[in-house]
Amino acid sequence: MKKIVVLGGDGFCGWPTSLHLSNIGHEVLIVDNLSRRNIDNEINANSLTPIASVQTRLQAWKEVSGKSIEFVSIDISKEYLELLRLLSSFKPDVIVHFAEQRSAPYSMKSSKHKRYTVDNNISGTNNLMAAVVEAGLDPHIVHLGSMGVYGYGTVDMKIPEGYLDIYTKHDEEYKQNNILYPVNPGSIYHLTKTQDQLLFAFYNSNDGIRVTDLHQGVVWGTDTLETRMDERLINRFDYDGDYGTVLNRFIMQAAVSYPLTVHGSGGQTRAFIHIQDTVRCIELAIRSEPKAGDRVRILNQMTETHRVKDLAKMVSDITGASIDFIANPRNEDDENELHVENSSLIEMGLEPITLSHGLLTEVKEVSEKYSHRVNKDLIPCVSYWNRERESTSKP
Amino acid sequence: MKKIVVLGGDGFCGWPTSLHLSNIGHEVLIVDNLSRRNIDNEINANSLTPIASVQTRLQAWKEVSGKSIEFVSIDISKEYLELLRLLSSFKPDVIVHFAEQRSAPYSMKSSKHKRYTVDNNISGTNNLMAAVVEAGLDPHIVHLGSMGVYGYGTVDMKIPEGYLDIYTKHDEEYKQNNILYPVNPGSIYHLTKTQDQLLFAFYNSNDGIRVTDLHQGVVWGTDTLETRMDERLINRFDYDGDYGTVLNRFIMQAAVSYPLTVHGSGGQTRAFIHIQDTVRCIELAIRSEPKAGDRVRILNQMTETHRVKDLAKMVSDITGASIDFIANPRNEDDENELHVENSSLIEMGLEPITLSHGLLTEVKEVSEKYSHRVNKDLIPCVSYWNRERESTSKP
Repeated sequence: MKKIVVLGGDGFCGWPTSLHLSNIGHEVLIVDNLSRRNIDNEINANSLTPIASVQTRLQAWKEVSGKSIEFVSIDISKEYLELLRLLSSFKPDVIVHFAEQRSAPYSMKSSKHKRYTVDNNISGTNNLMAAVVEAGLDPHIVHLGSMGVYGYGTVDMKIPEGYLDIYTKHDEEYKQNNILYPVNPGSIYHLTKTQDQLLFAFYNSNDGIRVTDLHQGVVWGTDTLETRMDERLINRFDYDGDYGTVLNRFIMQAAVSYPLTVHGSGGQTRAFIHIQDTVRCIELAIRSEPKAGDRVRILNQMTETHRVKDLAKMVSDITGASIDFIANPRNEDDENELHVENSSLIEMGLEPITLSHGLLTEVKEVSEKYSHRVNKDLIPCVSYWNRERESTSKP
Repeated sequence: MKKIVVLGGDGFCGWPTSLHLSNIGHEVLIVDNLSRRNIDNEINANSLTPIASVQTRLQAWKEVSGKSIEFVSIDISKEYLELLRLLSSFKPDVIVHFAEQRSAPYSMKSSKHKRYTVDNNISGTNNLMAAVVEAGLDPHIVHLGSMGVYGYGTVDMKIPEGYLDIYTKHDEEYKQNNILYPVNPGSIYHLTKTQDQLLFAFYNSNDGIRVTDLHQGVVWGTDTLETRMDERLINRFDYDGDYGTVLNRFIMQAAVSYPLTVHGSGGQTRAFIHIQDTVRCIELAIRSEPKAGDRVRILNQMTETHRVKDLAKMVSDITGASIDFIANPRNEDDENELHVENSSLIEMGLEPITLSHGLLTEVKEVSEKYSHRVNKDLIPCVSYWNRERESTSKP
């Protein structure tokens, strides 16, 4: 049993992770400023699934499982002293760090959103690291990174797990080095994950802080073993143009007979993982913690890659939905290959849930069940990456 | 004649740069929140030279040169709308960005100082870039980076100007790529410069913003052609343990008969540049601006490298001062080599002022003249990089 703080433990990945870690016997404390719920208010969006308040969630969890999870409201990007005090008294063995603004389109909506994302994510991570050092603790920090730090691979080869073997040429001889993979973030959100990497590397090297950075693909699916135990525990399902990830948007569009909207040619290849596998990966990362003196451990948390247009076809084949190709608001290539090394978590015991097995269940159990809650006006993405994309994409 | 905004134009590099750009005919507007003067109050330090208020400085400049420089007080890390409004109305051709907390020891003093440095520097740079995009401007941004982004060279070869040719191995064949040099920052301050690099790369790629990033060595010297024109124009000279750069500290220690304090073995090699060359480099960078579509241009702004102990010996030979080797508060290797490519600015016309020529003048004209103003208590560095350094270094 470990004492675990989950920063951002009320969010899409944080909530099922908190339940799962509690379920397998850890003592879990959630820290969250509920910013994700507040952003729903700002952008007039809502979860397709009827999520309960965090207090109701925790009450339900106690009733269902007999286990308690504590909740503390702290904005880790602004309330440093509260965070420091909490860590000093709780003395966690593990800190799982999900507390970041995590939508690429939201991060590109306007200057205000760019600034919020940078300020929130970078100050939050730096505050966490500074607090751990100041409190004199030695926790294992497990951070949710993003496959997006790699871009589509800045080097023409399979993307490794965080570090790249390179050679430099000296007088016709090649010398080998191993470096942090050269980054190529595609949005301000992804940029903050590349800046996080540098923070982790520095605090790891200067203060010996142990960190696992999990570069995650696009998450699909909604519920996990634990969130299915009671409807009050249900996880959020975002389908709006900002927070809805591509596959979940397709699933929901099919359920409400809205054409599947593919940005550009749909030739973009993305990496995917099911939410159930996300929580399992966090469990595996916690179980096998880095030793003192280890550099930051980076693992790729994804299980399969697909082209967006192939995903649309898959969903269309299951549901009969039509497919619409629309102008791409993102500043990205129309086509890309993506090959990713992901053997570490598989070797640690991950047994991936594949799209081909889980997709139909997701459509039936979640999207169709809650389709009466949809607001179709929220479906289009109206965040444009730059002036040029805005002028060609705006309806 | 160009319209130039100098962010941080009241600081150690910013002030002589502003005067120089004004002197050669540009229209200069200084934006500064005077944070450097406020930090003097916080750490009970002062400039060895008697610097005038910014208002007195500008009045003196008008009297001496007949030219006007405007001053606007804005904290670019917090007052985004003021910055946006200023840029939108002034419409600068060039923005010189010095507006960052620039002391490595200060950035390591405590959690508060780590947090201030990250928040101030990263939010400031991001606010600037977001404002330029929002205002729809196409200025050339000239940023003062740091040689410290490279560490002492993460790859065992001469440090190139910003980008590194690498090879990756595919089935026994080597493929070439050119990447941003792998970073290895030695302090929170230097870390922020590596995070700045990522911000510039993103806004350059997404919005086409043109940027020159000048990775500068340790600056020595005090005055320039323009700051010598009137005593009210004198530049600041920091000698305290946080802001005093190594060579200026030696020069001042010699002037007040204090032993030259060398941290550790003194085998650390650093890159140097005279303040007169700094302002000349900014002029050269402005004159040869990047074209639309160019990636971020990175230039190494340094003219010579020396071991710290050799510098101490040079100053000792000139002045007769003794040398004290003391425990190193920084977490760094005791010895390092440093070889740096710096041909770009030389080819653009820089004619370096060398230590061997300028050192004696500096000792006589500045340190001895103002030695009565020194507070010897401020000389030791009392910022420790981590717990271990604190326990071995504290007197």
